Amino acid sequence: LQPRALAAQESVFARTSREAAARGAVNLGQGFPAAAPPAFLLDAARAAVGRHDQYTPPAGLPALREALGAEFGVDPADVLVTSGATEGLQTLALALYPPGGEVLTLEPAFDVYGPQAELAGARAVPVMLALAPQLGWRLDLDAVARAVTPRTCALLLNTPHNPTGLVFTLAEVEALVALARAHDLWIVSDEVYDELYFGPRPVSPRALAPERTFVVGSAGKRLEATGWRVGWVVCPPGLASSLAGVRQLASFCAPTPLQWAVARALPVAREGGLYGALRDSYAARLDTLAGGLEALGVTVFRPGGSYFLTAHRADWSAAALMDAGVAAIPVQAFCSQALNVPGVMRLAFCKSEADLALALERLATMD
Amino acid sequence: LQPRALAAQESVFARTSREAAARGAVNLGQGFPAAAPPAFLLDAARAAVGRHDQYTPPAGLPALREALGAEFGVDPADVLVTSGATEGLQTLALALYPPGGEVLTLEPAFDVYGPQAELAGARAVPVMLALAPQLGWRLDLDAVARAVTPRTCALLLNTPHNPTGLVFTLAEVEALVALARAHDLWIVSDEVYDELYFGPRPVSPRALAPERTFVVGSAGKRLEATGWRVGWVVCPPGLASSLAGVRQLASFCAPTPLQWAVARALPVAREGGLYGALRDSYAARLDTLAGGLEALGVTVFRPGGSYFLTAHRADWSAAALMDAGVAAIPVQAFCSQALNVPGVMRLAFCKSEADLALALERLATMD
Ligand SMILES: CSCCC(=O)C(=O)O
Ligand SMILES: CSCCC(=O)C(=O)O
Repeated sequence: LQPRALAAQESVFARTSREAAARGAVNLGQGFPAAAPPAFLLDAARAAVGRHDQYTPPAGLPALREALGAEFGVDPADVLVTSGATEGLQTLALALYPPGGEVLTLEPAFDVYGPQAELAGARAVPVMLALAPQLGWRLDLDAVARAVTPRTCALLLNTPHNPTGLVFTLAEVEALVALARAHDLWIVSDEVYDELYFGPRPVSPRALAPERTFVVGSAGKRLEATGWRVGWVVCPPGLASSLAGVRQLASFCAPTPLQWAVARALPVAREGGLYGALRDSYAARLDTLAGGLEALGVTVFRPGGSYFLTAHRADWSAAALMDAGVAAIPVQAFCSQALNVPGVMRLAFCKSEADLALALERLATMD
Repeated sequence: LQPRALAAQESVFARTSREAAARGAVNLGQGFPAAAPPAFLLDAARAAVGRHDQYTPPAGLPALREALGAEFGVDPADVLVTSGATEGLQTLALALYPPGGEVLTLEPAFDVYGPQAELAGARAVPVMLALAPQLGWRLDLDAVARAVTPRTCALLLNTPHNPTGLVFTLAEVEALVALARAHDLWIVSDEVYDELYFGPRPVSPRALAPERTFVVGSAGKRLEATGWRVGWVVCPPGLASSLAGVRQLASFCAPTPLQWAVARALPVAREGGLYGALRDSYAARLDTLAGGLEALGVTVFRPGGSYFLTAHRADWSAAALMDAGVAAIPVQAFCSQALNVPGVMRLAFCKSEADLALALERLATMD
């Protein structure tokens, strides 16, 4: 086997779910919702099965590209449908990053960014988000600017940011876009949590620099169906067809009946207020978990978006939480360098109120 | 954009389907069936949706790996589930082919083999199947042996073979396996049409060399749901988890509800005799198309397996057939060198009897 296969580690998300199941732990590790997807999505999928079962074009089912074009206010020809956001990110790595290129990422960072850059012959150059033990996470714009070299080819943003929950402000996004313009960098903007925010609505760099920004999105996150493998990339004008040429080697097309269902569901979700209802429901669960943790003496960094919070206490570690019966992901697992604060964990609150309560009960036994 | 994106051409299959639709042609080009998938598969998918919607492990839904283990007589731990056979092939390219490596392929060859090898930094070395204008296709074992160099790392087989329909004999497979053993080559065996044969049952090199053979398969082909994106790789013992590490960067996991449905359907298909019924139905359609073409003075090479036939007549070309209202794929599109016989086309007979009759009617107008 080749080094890239031998080096490949089991994803920390998959491993945590496996261990949680084996040990009967409440799984606040991997980010997938407890709730079933909305009924209108399920009904559309049941109707599509048996009627839309064969290949779609690699760029996506035309009806889904239309729906996404309407959703994002772009020409459907500039939207690429992928087998989940992960495939969108891999496609972008292969299409945009040159051998020897450097991609700026914001650490802690989602696990695939680095290995996907390496697959393209490039490498991720992580810039740490600053963590103040009581105040939480903050983007250090100067650190980003200092990390640019002549080999930098792209800025990989993620807002709302996983795992920190940061939603970058308009001023921050403006500064990042200005940096990308000044150095002629592509912007890859991972916005899978775009509809999940608890304060100001996230600003996409695409709004400021559509000519250089690729937005990665996910029906799995928006519609609570993470296993459906329907994602997308909103591309600068004229580039989607070249990307389709890359993705057709990966999985040829996304699952047809599920693409069809998502095409049906997107306008219903928008018009029916699904995303607002989701935000309300997640905000309540965030309060449950954050409030409960604070009562246990845990320092909680409340997220501006996503369905994760980060939190720490001196005696916390993944092993200690797992021993108490709660699976969570150490933020260190998202980092290539040592974090300056020990015991920082990411906890997913996209789980049921019952599971959150059980987790809090178990964490209380750690005292 | 990087050269691999700029160089990427629209797949000949996608292009042909697009042109067929635009021109109202009968689509005997891209290989997807006209029939709906079997009812037991559809019912299982409708039941899974709303109950199995979140991520599975990257290696696959455990129940599907169990079902595939039973199907192939292997440990479920040695089966990797992929987002279609295309992703299985890409995963193998990235996991097995070293930079500078050479992969022997049998041309005409399925379109992704070459670009996927290049993605891994390797290259495909095509060995032509010999074509005699009246007799058809034949494997030239000496030509395969002559193509081996010190850089050869793998033999990429495909039986039943697309586009020729060849099913390699036991003696041929034995010889290819002996060659792989002698030069310590991996064998990647694309067997997506494994249950579709009209003469002797295809022999898998895995039966002879399980320690070096990876078998790529497809629920889409077996269960007539090419858009469902559920494929698999049966691996030599102990290697599936490293492959899972590669594929988790590509699409993380295959679509969960569809994996679940395939897990349910595989034993039903086997026990209920689905594959025999499919073979009978395809054999009848093969007779319709081949007989009709022969009556038009076309030389037909009847396939031993797959749902394609190849055929030629001096005045045939993709453009001429399209003008007559029939989309087909020129076998030249599967080749990196010029074919020695002009006007050889691949026609798919996985279409309805009505469409086959209409196609024959239209082809008759070419006289
Ligand atoms: C693709 S598995 C990871 C799911 C997720 O987004 C997370 O837990 O961070
Ligand atoms: C993945 S599109 C090609 C379908 C197919 O197997 C063929 O037409 O050869």
